[in-house]
Amino acid sequence: MKQSQLFTKTTKENPKDETSINARLLIRAGFIDKLMAGVYTLLPLGLLTIKKIENVIREEINKIDGQEIVMPTLQPKENWEKTGRWDAMDDLYKVKDSGNKEYALGPTHEEIIVPLAKKFINSYKDIPTYVYQFQNKFRMELRSKSGILRGREFLMKDLYSFHLTKEDLDDYYQKAKEAYFKIFERMGLKEKTYYTFASGGSFCKYSHEFQTVNPVGEDTIYICEKCQSAINKEIKDEINECPECGGKKFREEKAIEVGNIFKLMNKYSKPFDLSVLDENGKKQELVMGCYGIGLGRAMGTIVETYHDEAGIIWPEEIAPFKVHLISIKQNEEAEKIYNNLMKDGVEVLYDDCEASAGEKFADADLIGLPYRVVISDKSLKAGGIEIKKRSEKKAEIIKTTELNSLLK
Amino acid sequence: MKQSQLFTKTTKENPKDETSINARLLIRAGFIDKLMAGVYTLLPLGLLTIKKIENVIREEINKIDGQEIVMPTLQPKENWEKTGRWDAMDDLYKVKDSGNKEYALGPTHEEIIVPLAKKFINSYKDIPTYVYQFQNKFRMELRSKSGILRGREFLMKDLYSFHLTKEDLDDYYQKAKEAYFKIFERMGLKEKTYYTFASGGSFCKYSHEFQTVNPVGEDTIYICEKCQSAINKEIKDEINECPECGGKKFREEKAIEVGNIFKLMNKYSKPFDLSVLDENGKKQELVMGCYGIGLGRAMGTIVETYHDEAGIIWPEEIAPFKVHLISIKQNEEAEKIYNNLMKDGVEVLYDDCEASAGEKFADADLIGLPYRVVISDKSLKAGGIEIKKRSEKKAEIIKTTELNSLLK
Repeated sequence: MKQSQLFTKTTKENPKDETSINARLLIRAGFIDKLMAGVYTLLPLGLLTIKKIENVIREEINKIDGQEIVMPTLQPKENWEKTGRWDAMDDLYKVKDSGNKEYALGPTHEEIIVPLAKKFINSYKDIPTYVYQFQNKFRMELRSKSGILRGREFLMKDLYSFHLTKEDLDDYYQKAKEAYFKIFERMGLKEKTYYTFASGGSFCKYSHEFQTVNPVGEDTIYICEKCQSAINKEIKDEINECPECGGKKFREEKAIEVGNIFKLMNKYSKPFDLSVLDENGKKQELVMGCYGIGLGRAMGTIVETYHDEAGIIWPEEIAPFKVHLISIKQNEEAEKIYNNLMKDGVEVLYDDCEASAGEKFADADLIGLPYRVVISDKSLKAGGIEIKKRSEKKAEIIKTTELNSLLK
Repeated sequence: MKQSQLFTKTTKENPKDETSINARLLIRAGFIDKLMAGVYTLLPLGLLTIKKIENVIREEINKIDGQEIVMPTLQPKENWEKTGRWDAMDDLYKVKDSGNKEYALGPTHEEIIVPLAKKFINSYKDIPTYVYQFQNKFRMELRSKSGILRGREFLMKDLYSFHLTKEDLDDYYQKAKEAYFKIFERMGLKEKTYYTFASGGSFCKYSHEFQTVNPVGEDTIYICEKCQSAINKEIKDEINECPECGGKKFREEKAIEVGNIFKLMNKYSKPFDLSVLDENGKKQELVMGCYGIGLGRAMGTIVETYHDEAGIIWPEEIAPFKVHLISIKQNEEAEKIYNNLMKDGVEVLYDDCEASAGEKFADADLIGLPYRVVISDKSLKAGGIEIKKRSEKKAEIIKTTELNSLLK
């Protein structure tokens, strides 16, 4: 895409009402716009990035047999009364229609997926089954201070699994754990992300979070020196040793929760009577798991993890474009390079704007695409074009003809 | 995908609370599930279909330089008060947070896009510019009786254009009209879809609708015999002749509004003071156009247009899969064919279920994929596999080796 045609512009000034690095950089670089606390517009660069994240998640969840659907935001009050959460959830947005009927704006979708699954799961032969969606969630969040890490309206992937037995749930839970690590690996977060034991509520001993170590994290975790699992502070007092390996030495870290998985057991199948006859003709309540990842939070965590004073440093798989092609008064040559790269399917943001080299380099650093390619009088005299990785300091001169094979 | 693993099942029974053909067929075939009046879940087949529709729209809107973003559902009351629509719109869903602050659930996004555009349009050099999104809309719709043709929560593509002059808006409006016809052509709706003059409200003589002739349509249109433009009944009393060609002979038809385009002029730029200095340093209020297509309604209109007693007949470009491969007790051979088609990138739903031939054929007719491919003892004895178009009666026997080149 040509930068001169981009709807957005970068800005040097930090937004006054944002203190978080993720929101400051994403707003300054033109990825997101803040409408109000916890509510953001995805601008063209931000939407491209979110779609990259979405694709990574979709590919990995499809590999563990997830089937994609989309459930509604407007949800009937009756369903929420059935599970007791209409009154119990403080952060539930409620809306009335003109006949005074009330609805919840879905903050999660157990109340919808369970009665839906009940329509299609009629026999033990219909399970296990795994259904997921990408859908906006709404939570009346008063602590919306962490940029896009904590939203009132935010896009989530939520997966739900249905099983006949606890053993089958355990097996799938393990698969989901591995899929999650694959997802965080592709996002560039794996190294700093820890599988963390957290509270399981009243119906299960533990849930598990994927916590990415970062000083801005709202959570505190204790990482086991022996097995690298972690424990969330919220349950630290209850246990003396690592539930994974029995280790007793921990180090404390601040972390961002980038995903969580939960054995729901029969908590939601019970109120909706989701059950089947098993092979012996005996009625069995199904057990369930749920598995969430917030996409905006993932994007924010990537920015918190990969940036410097000048801007964002996107991991290659998540970057909105692979290459930032910059013309310094060489638009004719640059246009050729641009078209050639496009022909080979390389995703390029081409800076064809009228601006100084300094301004263009500052923009490229702020937006943070993996490769900066510059064509200028200077580069041509030196023998071609200059290429530099955003994550490295050193630039290199290569021949124009070498570029495509290097970037493909 | 293997049908035995599909989350959903088909059903022979019509849902009791749906009278419309689109909802009955889409629910029976497992494309959608009704949560409540006007609110549906997209099931795996339905989501695949909506994504096909979305892709067609995206490709054609990108060709007329649209840039994709996503704006929020939760919208501040102040913005809606500025345009006077907070009180004026009867069908606006309103929601409060715990601090009693009020928000609208976006039924459209002028109140958001205009202040957003103001941040990035600082000079006449920044326009024209075109921004669009796919986003859920919410309308407190009491007439939710037409299945997915009229929803309370529904996915729309809305495009907004910003111009310095009326002439520039007119030019783009014409381009958008052509893009819309291309979109409806690819959806299989062009032949029955008429460019229809409708009320322009207080600020513009006419708006334009794309009306697909169908007996279940809620609109009445008058098609000009001379130029094939049409007039919506709502303005028929005000005009005597076709605004396009002056023709005076019309035929009356029922029709479904599948798209609409609107010259907003300065209606929304004024309240937000969206203006720039022109080349002569004179302040100019921008003029705007807006361009909508409802994706669920498009899917419903396709079903209303293409079906028979047995089920849906999807146009090829919109079908969730191209091929319904059916094994009649020949799963080993069928599996090979399935893998071969997948290898060539052909989208296949493979019916590997245990069921009678009759049940399988009924399912295939109901789901309505463009090609039915059957492998059975009978077909093998006749020399290979049986292939039949959903839109045709006659089946044909071909050699297995001929299949891929036929379907690629």
